Amino acid sequence: MLREMLENVRIKSPLIHNITNYVTVNDCANILLACGGNPIMADDIGEAEEITSVCDGLNINIGTLNQRTIPAMLAAGKRANTLGHPVVLDPVGAGASKLRTETALTLLKEVKFSVIRGNMSEIKTLASGSGSTRGVDAGILDRVTKENLGQAVAFAKEFSCKTGAVIAITGAIDIVSDQEKAFCIYNGHPDMSRVTGTGCQLSAMTAAYAAANPDTALTAAAASVCAMGLCGEIARSRMSAEDGNASYRNYIIDAVFHLTGENLEKGAKYEMR
Amino acid sequence: MLREMLENVRIKSPLIHNITNYVTVNDCANILLACGGNPIMADDIGEAEEITSVCDGLNINIGTLNQRTIPAMLAAGKRANTLGHPVVLDPVGAGASKLRTETALTLLKEVKFSVIRGNMSEIKTLASGSGSTRGVDAGILDRVTKENLGQAVAFAKEFSCKTGAVIAITGAIDIVSDQEKAFCIYNGHPDMSRVTGTGCQLSAMTAAYAAANPDTALTAAAASVCAMGLCGEIARSRMSAEDGNASYRNYIIDAVFHLTGENLEKGAKYEMR
Amino acid sequence: MLREMLENVRIKSPLIHNITNYVTVNDCANILLACGGNPIMADDIGEAEEITSVCDGLNINIGTLNQRTIPAMLAAGKRANTLGHPVVLDPVGAGASKLRTETALTLLKEVKFSVIRGNMSEIKTLASGSGSTRGVDAGILDRVTKENLGQAVAFAKEFSCKTGAVIAITGAIDIVSDQEKAFCIYNGHPDMSRVTGTGCQLSAMTAAYAAANPDTALTAAAASVCAMGLCGEIARSRMSAEDGNASYRNYIIDAVFHLTGENLEKGAKYEMR
Repeated sequence: MLREMLENVRIKSPLIHNITNYVTVNDCANILLACGGNPIMADDIGEAEEITSVCDGLNINIGTLNQRTIPAMLAAGKRANTLGHPVVLDPVGAGASKLRTETALTLLKEVKFSVIRGNMSEIKTLASGSGSTRGVDAGILDRVTKENLGQAVAFAKEFSCKTGAVIAITGAIDIVSDQEKAFCIYNGHPDMSRVTGTGCQLSAMTAAYAAANPDTALTAAAASVCAMGLCGEIARSRMSAEDGNASYRNYIIDAVFHLTGENLEKGAKYEMR
Repeated sequence: MLREMLENVRIKSPLIHNITNYVTVNDCANILLACGGNPIMADDIGEAEEITSVCDGLNINIGTLNQRTIPAMLAAGKRANTLGHPVVLDPVGAGASKLRTETALTLLKEVKFSVIRGNMSEIKTLASGSGSTRGVDAGILDRVTKENLGQAVAFAKEFSCKTGAVIAITGAIDIVSDQEKAFCIYNGHPDMSRVTGTGCQLSAMTAAYAAANPDTALTAAAASVCAMGLCGEIARSRMSAEDGNASYRNYIIDAVFHLTGENLEKGAKYEMR
Repeated sequence: MLREMLENVRIKSPLIHNITNYVTVNDCANILLACGGNPIMADDIGEAEEITSVCDGLNINIGTLNQRTIPAMLAAGKRANTLGHPVVLDPVGAGASKLRTETALTLLKEVKFSVIRGNMSEIKTLASGSGSTRGVDAGILDRVTKENLGQAVAFAKEFSCKTGAVIAITGAIDIVSDQEKAFCIYNGHPDMSRVTGTGCQLSAMTAAYAAANPDTALTAAAASVCAMGLCGEIARSRMSAEDGNASYRNYIIDAVFHLTGENLEKGAKYEMR
């Protein structure tokens, strides 16, 4: 099942428009090439809609957000909606500043997203701001554990109902959920958090998976999350005693480059809830 | 012949002003250092002319183009022309949006370029828009092959006549041409297209080669294109079974770091047309 | 003594706000993660103060300076001062353009810096412009050597008196000085200058060291400079015959990832003046 998701990316080679931060943009481009997709980066309002139109999917990432690119995000997002292209939102740092929180909420209001991927803190910020009368359940910790997994899954399903998007909450345990079903994913390695941009890279790759698998957004997003975590494991096992986070960064992308559908199917560790 | 081009870069260590995209800018800086040049990046209209004045060459790349930097490109280009510094144009994505196409055409009109380097699709866009009465020959494929090489060379020579620039069209076969003579270059490896920014890097390096060899622009550009392709081959042969496009990126720059004039002369594969 | 500086970074994991250039920003993020800190990049005036407020230190770097981000630098710097957070200035390219020189001088006037880190040319530009009646001593060469070291140390102490900041002048010999005492540091390798952004990375890491050691700014900055130089040596010794500046870049960050307080203490080569 996950295998087909990956293989469709390699067969269709979707072109992904990225409006993303300048910190991790090079890694986003290389991971898109590694997984079988193709990247274009364009963030000026003078070309955002046109570039989106020639692509197969759109990835909006609000890291290093600035006022010049917000209108481009909105315009590209709306155009992608009109064209039926999948759109991924990575709400980097939502909650850390009003600019990021409000921009993320505006994007949520104006654009229909296929997948929203962030950490629990970011997703809670979006859910809290989106008008839920109950607010965010204070009982949901920022760190998903085996103990609070059921609660976290319920939260993800509820936010999926509100937004219509597949919700991907990544952390020690990843949750990828639509309104009814959730993948709880156990792939990955803690050291991935010491490489900048593994989350950004995952969002970019998820846009490629969503674009190549338009009718199965949940499974596509879950396959992308499993692939990233599995590649984090493969890359970790390749590290020598002298390798640190810079080499780890390269090895993760290298592992994505070589990952096959068969190995993804075998290596994915998840349960459905 | 190619040997001297490379050795002059190492001897003169030209300082190159880059106004370039934020996706591949770090790789452009590192490849300039690898080949023996030095990079400065500056894109604000408040300093673009001044920075160009203290440099030996200018590299203008329109990836992630935005309206803030277009005036800086024009101002720096004109200043470089006044000073007699070589200017390289990399028309990334020309044809993909009006903003890029029109900006590239404006640059062509306002700035005299020493070298224009792009893929066939980008160069065709520029040639088509530059007022050719015959338009771009519809028979020229986007992919240069042995079968259509003669036609592609004729096209490159014609565009060189129009612009006065050396035209470098890179792909499976690279063409580097002035108005009379063309290098048809067979170096490189197909996997280079799975590393983001190999084209951007080549353009930056070509600016260093042009700056260090001011009287032999054609040979300088051909040497740079041969060097990049040859380093792509050397780097490819170094890859282990686990290495993917991230390691390949590093190995290509590493190979540029170690390339000698002698090895370039031996490894360059080209014919003149 | 240096050991504690490093260990405090690993224990406290300071969050560092970076307003920095887009050339080396990814490496700055990864070296902050490598040393035990955490990075946030944010340069829009709409969030700069807010982001600084949730951080432990601020790193301002004027490479690829542009008019959009100058107000954000000033606002963040002032907020950090109000909160008592350490602020590092990296005056990249001061002296190369009026925009950079004047912005650096404005920053010096409006913001109190804990550490100013640059090469001799950049620091001389700042000292010259800051109203010294004697001007910069023309006898101080741009390259610090054993012969002019005494003179260079006196210059650093004088500039520290004027600014109240620890002055870190990096080059073949590094000087890290407050008003009374200077570390003259002999770590490092000449090939570090062939990796783009080692200076930018050092400034980012120094912000983490300063934030984790608020009462010992001089020793913290010296520890960071020793650590970077030592990691340059460790990384250099790891290089194979085929490795060039791209691999070197990765190995330096990897070495920072693995550096222990004990190894820093043993490997640091400095004298006090």
